[in-house]
Amino acid sequence: MKKLLVANRGEIAVRIIRTAHEMGIVVVAVVSEADKTSYAAELADEVIVIGPAPASLSYLNQDAVLKAAIESGADAVHPGYGFLSENAAFARKVIAAGITWVGPSPESIELMGDKSRARQAAIDAGVPTLRGTEGALRDGDDIVSIAAGIGYPLVVKASAGGGGRGIRLVASPADLVSTVGIAQAEALAAFNSSDVYFELFVTRARHVEVQIFGDGENYVHLGDRDCSMQRRQQKVLEEAPAPGLPDHVRQLMRDSSVDLARQASYVGAGTVEFLYDPETEEVAFIEMNTRLQVEHPITEAITGIDLVREQLRIASGEKLGYSQEDVAFTGHALEFRINAEDPSNNFMPSPGVISSLHLPGGPGVRVDFGFIAGNAVAPFYDSLLGKIIVWAPTRDLAISRAERVLGEARIEGVKTTAGLLRTLVALDDFRQVTHHTAYIESVPDLLGVPA
Amino acid sequence: MKKLLVANRGEIAVRIIRTAHEMGIVVVAVVSEADKTSYAAELADEVIVIGPAPASLSYLNQDAVLKAAIESGADAVHPGYGFLSENAAFARKVIAAGITWVGPSPESIELMGDKSRARQAAIDAGVPTLRGTEGALRDGDDIVSIAAGIGYPLVVKASAGGGGRGIRLVASPADLVSTVGIAQAEALAAFNSSDVYFELFVTRARHVEVQIFGDGENYVHLGDRDCSMQRRQQKVLEEAPAPGLPDHVRQLMRDSSVDLARQASYVGAGTVEFLYDPETEEVAFIEMNTRLQVEHPITEAITGIDLVREQLRIASGEKLGYSQEDVAFTGHALEFRINAEDPSNNFMPSPGVISSLHLPGGPGVRVDFGFIAGNAVAPFYDSLLGKIIVWAPTRDLAISRAERVLGEARIEGVKTTAGLLRTLVALDDFRQVTHHTAYIESVPDLLGVPA
Repeated sequence: MKKLLVANRGEIAVRIIRTAHEMGIVVVAVVSEADKTSYAAELADEVIVIGPAPASLSYLNQDAVLKAAIESGADAVHPGYGFLSENAAFARKVIAAGITWVGPSPESIELMGDKSRARQAAIDAGVPTLRGTEGALRDGDDIVSIAAGIGYPLVVKASAGGGGRGIRLVASPADLVSTVGIAQAEALAAFNSSDVYFELFVTRARHVEVQIFGDGENYVHLGDRDCSMQRRQQKVLEEAPAPGLPDHVRQLMRDSSVDLARQASYVGAGTVEFLYDPETEEVAFIEMNTRLQVEHPITEAITGIDLVREQLRIASGEKLGYSQEDVAFTGHALEFRINAEDPSNNFMPSPGVISSLHLPGGPGVRVDFGFIAGNAVAPFYDSLLGKIIVWAPTRDLAISRAERVLGEARIEGVKTTAGLLRTLVALDDFRQVTHHTAYIESVPDLLGVPA
Repeated sequence: MKKLLVANRGEIAVRIIRTAHEMGIVVVAVVSEADKTSYAAELADEVIVIGPAPASLSYLNQDAVLKAAIESGADAVHPGYGFLSENAAFARKVIAAGITWVGPSPESIELMGDKSRARQAAIDAGVPTLRGTEGALRDGDDIVSIAAGIGYPLVVKASAGGGGRGIRLVASPADLVSTVGIAQAEALAAFNSSDVYFELFVTRARHVEVQIFGDGENYVHLGDRDCSMQRRQQKVLEEAPAPGLPDHVRQLMRDSSVDLARQASYVGAGTVEFLYDPETEEVAFIEMNTRLQVEHPITEAITGIDLVREQLRIASGEKLGYSQEDVAFTGHALEFRINAEDPSNNFMPSPGVISSLHLPGGPGVRVDFGFIAGNAVAPFYDSLLGKIIVWAPTRDLAISRAERVLGEARIEGVKTTAGLLRTLVALDDFRQVTHHTAYIESVPDLLGVPA
């Protein structure tokens, strides 16, 4: 690989450029007109403007991205996360143009993108799943008795959904038929497929996930992460390894995730997401993401492995070159997502020019930002400015360090979530690991504002 | 320990404050009038101005520092490096005031501060030393035959010198008597003692050193470092572990350094410095520094151990709590000293206001700076702005990463050595470890200026 096109923006574009440069790879950045003077554009070796600001006219414009790749002579495309990263059709076009796709095969993307097929693949690989239907519901199914076999409350999920979208709760049998009808109509409108399926609904669950890597022959996991601290189903801080898991649960998650990757002949980086119920010590598959995750740096912090380098190596046809026994885990890492949002105004996006930016330093601190002082935060995109990652030998020390570190961050010109994250990491419920994915919403006035 | 006075400034004051805060310790910063608005002053919980700018009237004013410690109710003093850190008399005053001294005993400071006594202690502990005199020369010694037994070239060293000061080269017997006379007169003037001793002079040597820790009962090393890239005997970049050492040399250095600490009943952090001659594979003791080193973060990077935390723990009376087998080494780290100097003008100090400061980020990067944008760099102090530390799984990867990382740094308002460091780390001689302590001076126009 000599020349890589990065089909993304913000912190993940910067992240990819950094490793590519360390590997001696020339980087082409594609940018919207709004991002022409972004930090990613500044770091890249070549910059191609592919369209105006709304992502649909630039970062999501498959033809424009592909044209840029071909005309710049790029021999590979890294899609980052979001945007086109889980778009099998785009991956196919890239590959058809003779360009390396930095990601799993289009078939793997499609398999895991169809939630009912993915659930079945998980079952086949021995990955624990929630009680639910095998595959999508079919015409003529006796949904009342199927639902009774699962139990209430249950959720109706769109097969083509994912990332928290396309889900409806059914509290009791009385709501079942009407909710399924609504869910099917919504799924058809949103995802162009009315396929839905049932799963048991777990309250007060934690979100845990396993990072896997495969090269088509060899498969390893790089440990687990916990992303249970969420606001409206969006992760706000993450940690690795997942705290407080019984050994047998951790091992089951890790081993079965590797089995799922092996069964799918998976190539590249992937994340297998689970719900974990601390009361029953049960763990259950949610979905598999066929791309790099926002929170990948905490895995890098506890393993010393550069995940983007691994992606680029494997996409170039190299083999993993190490086995599970070679992967060592050291210490504990926390990641904090610094968003340009105003917590005192219902987390409204806070676009503007970053007039000054002082990020923390010292032992155990890594910063991954897509912006530098003087950059504008445009209103067109998600509000993630960057991430602060903290490592320490133990979780308690990492939490103490995080309180120190978040106190050092000073960002002026836009409002951010940094202060709020310092509040969250200092909570007893976080230290004791008694939080869960609905925790923020469950504590009145936790954030001093409606959650 | 509840309240710590930091008797230093710049990046090391910031470094100490960070760990103290992570441990829940309140910090008192003593500052000169020139440093009232420094970043260290801003991070500290209490700030006491102890005098005007020249260090002799503030940071070196023992009575002023001690008064601040007593009046602020501090129960401990951390001296950092430089200034009063190796001043046994000051350590005694702190202890006499009932305040904890974060460092070894005054007796250890004195022993290692007297270079001929330290050399004898090293010999007694089995630490390899250069051929030379045992102890200082005495009146009536037959210096001609002693020198002949050592061989030429040799150096005359002031017993009270150290850190490269008080050293004169003797190329041949013809210069011996006169040079000894000059060296004794200089030593008397500079150090208030005319004691000098002989040591063999090694050309093209590397500077390697071992980090040790002791609690008075237990002793460990935290591995070695290489600081061979120097300009005019000042370290410009350092790495850990030291590259290209034969296993038996590394083990001898590490083991004998621990033996020296044990023999001295040493308490706290110390560094045993060696010359290493790659041609003969011989290693020889230079001196032991009884304080934290500037380059301690590279040891933190490869061990995961916070050295300031260890200092504060041990000064509080805690035991090490781990043994040598518990110390694991992972990967390779490089440290780059970013000085406010103008490489194109003979490295003249470049004071001024830092108008903008963008420091690098991403995987494997740590920044330890004593300054933030808007701070003034005063002309009164050494020119170290801060350090950029890079970690990677291997030395080659760390070098590639360092080239990427140094390219991201952007400091405006003062001239810095960042660009120069990028040149140095990219040299073949550095990658091949064929550099030595006089390397920079030995390559004409290496820095584009007189070295």
